[in-house]
Amino acid sequence: MSISYEEYKQLVSKADLDGDCPVKRLLTVFSGKWHIRIIFELTKVDTIRFGELKKQISGITNTMLASTLKELEQNGIVLRTQFNEIPPHVEYSLTDSGKELYTIFYEMALWGSKNL
Amino acid sequence: MSISYEEYKQLVSKADLDGDCPVKRLLTVFSGKWHIRIIFELTKVDTIRFGELKKQISGITNTMLASTLKELEQNGIVLRTQFNEIPPHVEYSLTDSGKELYTIFYEMALWGSKNL
Repeated sequence: MSISYEEYKQLVSKADLDGDCPVKRLLTVFSGKWHIRIIFELTKVDTIRFGELKKQISGITNTMLASTLKELEQNGIVLRTQFNEIPPHVEYSLTDSGKELYTIFYEMALWGSKNL
Repeated sequence: MSISYEEYKQLVSKADLDGDCPVKRLLTVFSGKWHIRIIFELTKVDTIRFGELKKQISGITNTMLASTLKELEQNGIVLRTQFNEIPPHVEYSLTDSGKELYTIFYEMALWGSKNL
């Protein structure tokens, strides 16, 4: 982190005036209940199967996990790879831009360690 | 940001093994649809009234805004100040720990500018 709160405020106020705020765009993409939680789990692994991912996120249903993964795939954040072995299976991982989201979770970890 | 993705992965894997992950704690506190969006609006201002805040967040109802603000107040992130003027009014702002969340939004802004 190399920016002060005052500098940050100037930056977001300017983006707001331009009517084109990148934070709002990101929060719109991740507005569902599970998006951020799923991405966080994916930052921890190279690749993971659906069932294993579901086990890591208590409370999520198959339907919610499947539909959120599909949305994240459409947004270029999640990569879905199908292995045509016997039996066939599917693995999920983050795309290169998806991986870059780790900086957000790192800041969350710093804040959470200090304040929660 | 002064940590690589590989270093980050080691860190969160360790926190996970310890069963005490600060990111999960933060995501639990902010698990509602509006928490992060409201905090983001509050990072932009010194203080704001209820009605003005509502105008900034399209789609939110009075009930949702009021209950989420109350939760954030209970978690020590939002400060509610009542002014006993005539007419009386209430203003909302971030506490000191709430303000420190700006680093998360700054990383979101960087990622959003590049990828969305």
